[in-house]
Amino acid sequence: MELTVLDDIETKLLTLESKLRVVESESMDIARSAGRILAQEVLNFRDSPPMDVSAMDGYACRLEDLQVCASRLPVDQTATAGAAPLELSGHRAIRIFTGAVVPKGANVVIPRERCDEKTDRVAIQMPLDQIKLGWNIRRQAENARQGDVALSAGCRIDGPRISSLVSMHQHPQILVHRKVRVAIINTGDELLDIGMPIQPWQIRDSNGPLLECSLQALPWTQWTRTSVKDDLPKIQSAIEQALQDSDAIILTGGVSMGDTDHVPTAVQNAGGKIVFHRLPIRPGAPILAAASDHGQLILGLPGNPVSVAVTFRRYGLPLLEHLTGKIDRSACYRTELANSDEKTLHLVWFRLVKIQPDSTALLLPSQGSGDLRSLGLSDGFIEVPPQTPSKGSFRYYDWSPS
Amino acid sequence: MELTVLDDIETKLLTLESKLRVVESESMDIARSAGRILAQEVLNFRDSPPMDVSAMDGYACRLEDLQVCASRLPVDQTATAGAAPLELSGHRAIRIFTGAVVPKGANVVIPRERCDEKTDRVAIQMPLDQIKLGWNIRRQAENARQGDVALSAGCRIDGPRISSLVSMHQHPQILVHRKVRVAIINTGDELLDIGMPIQPWQIRDSNGPLLECSLQALPWTQWTRTSVKDDLPKIQSAIEQALQDSDAIILTGGVSMGDTDHVPTAVQNAGGKIVFHRLPIRPGAPILAAASDHGQLILGLPGNPVSVAVTFRRYGLPLLEHLTGKIDRSACYRTELANSDEKTLHLVWFRLVKIQPDSTALLLPSQGSGDLRSLGLSDGFIEVPPQTPSKGSFRYYDWSPS
Repeated sequence: MELTVLDDIETKLLTLESKLRVVESESMDIARSAGRILAQEVLNFRDSPPMDVSAMDGYACRLEDLQVCASRLPVDQTATAGAAPLELSGHRAIRIFTGAVVPKGANVVIPRERCDEKTDRVAIQMPLDQIKLGWNIRRQAENARQGDVALSAGCRIDGPRISSLVSMHQHPQILVHRKVRVAIINTGDELLDIGMPIQPWQIRDSNGPLLECSLQALPWTQWTRTSVKDDLPKIQSAIEQALQDSDAIILTGGVSMGDTDHVPTAVQNAGGKIVFHRLPIRPGAPILAAASDHGQLILGLPGNPVSVAVTFRRYGLPLLEHLTGKIDRSACYRTELANSDEKTLHLVWFRLVKIQPDSTALLLPSQGSGDLRSLGLSDGFIEVPPQTPSKGSFRYYDWSPS
Repeated sequence: MELTVLDDIETKLLTLESKLRVVESESMDIARSAGRILAQEVLNFRDSPPMDVSAMDGYACRLEDLQVCASRLPVDQTATAGAAPLELSGHRAIRIFTGAVVPKGANVVIPRERCDEKTDRVAIQMPLDQIKLGWNIRRQAENARQGDVALSAGCRIDGPRISSLVSMHQHPQILVHRKVRVAIINTGDELLDIGMPIQPWQIRDSNGPLLECSLQALPWTQWTRTSVKDDLPKIQSAIEQALQDSDAIILTGGVSMGDTDHVPTAVQNAGGKIVFHRLPIRPGAPILAAASDHGQLILGLPGNPVSVAVTFRRYGLPLLEHLTGKIDRSACYRTELANSDEKTLHLVWFRLVKIQPDSTALLLPSQGSGDLRSLGLSDGFIEVPPQTPSKGSFRYYDWSPS
């Protein structure tokens, strides 16, 4: 029963994704590509390591020479990382640093710690029978061969992947997906900007700033934001306008069944095909999702702030990731609850939590989808399946996902 | 035994933190504060909700009137969210939308779904004895009272917290910690930029781009980057220069015990007091940490790319977070391994993993701290305590933390 509801939501999301068009790619300097999604396969342009290199600071020599010369060898050269390979002449050792190419002729590297070092000679201070041929030598191509796949298309370019790209890709440019262009449209007659004087019955627009802040953390998006009154022609016109130059439209408010809820009609009038309207979830049940004939995403989020936060994080973000060509979705972790209660819902229940220093999640008392105070105190939320008491471990969604 | 090693590292980190100076605060528009760290306590400037509001779309009326009038009442006004409160005149109902102020005199809101609606009247289609006084009315201050703490200093301003700030803070400006100024200094004779022709023994500088990309994901940092040769006076001078206008210096390379490892001496010559040098970890053992007399952080990371990635994520990031005044550190989750092996180390072992679709972590075969291919394939790493086989669940560090 529980699984059926979650599976059913998952199926709806997959249907929606199948109607969306992934954004094109563009060429870009690797150095500027932080946070973007790779749009090509990257092959190693050379072996890794490109030659045999030393794994330690020490002395490169021939094991046979050590045996012949009672572990004592003269030293007159130094091999440093990045320098052209040296050549070992008979019965000598070469001082070598980690990462330096192993001199031609050498077949072991003896670590400094095992040596008695003088300026012009070295004595190995360990039994020779403990030394195997090739000791402390990293062999050419032991990490990867030229032509091997270094990175696959669809990964997010984080620091370590930049490091890999810079080292493995021949050219300074790569193909990445262009930024996903998002149009935020906040609907509602009642919304006031923060600078304006406010009456006790008036409400500030918090959904626009919430979505802008959330998108700002996603370097693969760019966005515009407009506010429109609860008026069908105005909302429809805003959607039509946004469809001109956006890959995704995210509306807030006006998506329920009330007389002032014009978003469903406006979406359809503007050419959107509704894939689902309402999900068995709390908060956020009235959520609407549609696709245009050109594969653009149109998402209508219920206007309450907690609903916007939860539904954007749980559904909006993965859908935008789909648009940007990301293959590996943001991982979803499970977290153990620090406290628990027996309450259940017949719906999927998103409950706000605060992560504790020991990484468990504390359920926050919440007064519902208008409770901005609990929202501000939370680090994210857990997903509780229908008819399930809130105890044990649950899927956890952080407000600031990777 | 295992715990002792991890505890000992933790103690060293706390000692280091105690010598660091948190950056000052600055005033900033809430709308521009995404990703910054809040530097003040924020109190609710009004009750939440500020007045009694409706939790549903429906009809506001007096329960007594329903009893007197056989559940049928005339309707001639509509209460919308954001509009000034209406007043209920005797034996009437007012059409009301979610979030609208409950009209003066009304004591229940009957949901639309339970009504037979006409333009000018409404008939309630449910037994009156099921209706309690106050039904569907969210009471003034039920979320929070004026003067309650909405947000505490030290939290990261994410989307939901922006939403809370915009609604709960009276003014458009707040105090946030100013950005942490980081100086990246890459040391090494061997480093080539990606655009340049390369010989098989030459190595591209990947650590600079790795750190720049990692810092770019942290909106509370700004940074400069320089490369210097393996030369004591040059490294020392670069550190002295950076201490003029940075809160933190992150060096890569030159921190081991070799003859070309000038970083420890350069740090001390420049006035840095070393708090620790070497940790019982792999990779990254030679890591060095120091503080200046002015509370600036100086971190020397070993030059191998995997070491840089791991030690920056595991130690550098939380130390920078300390500098920026963040109270709640990035949560650290545990993850279950998808595969396992019996290998153990006498050190803390950071092992690269790829997160699977089911959120378990797959150990990647890795050839050591120079293995850029495994680095590029990984999503992060797990922390395996000393003498512990890699099976079960471990602390997991994602390359792109929240």
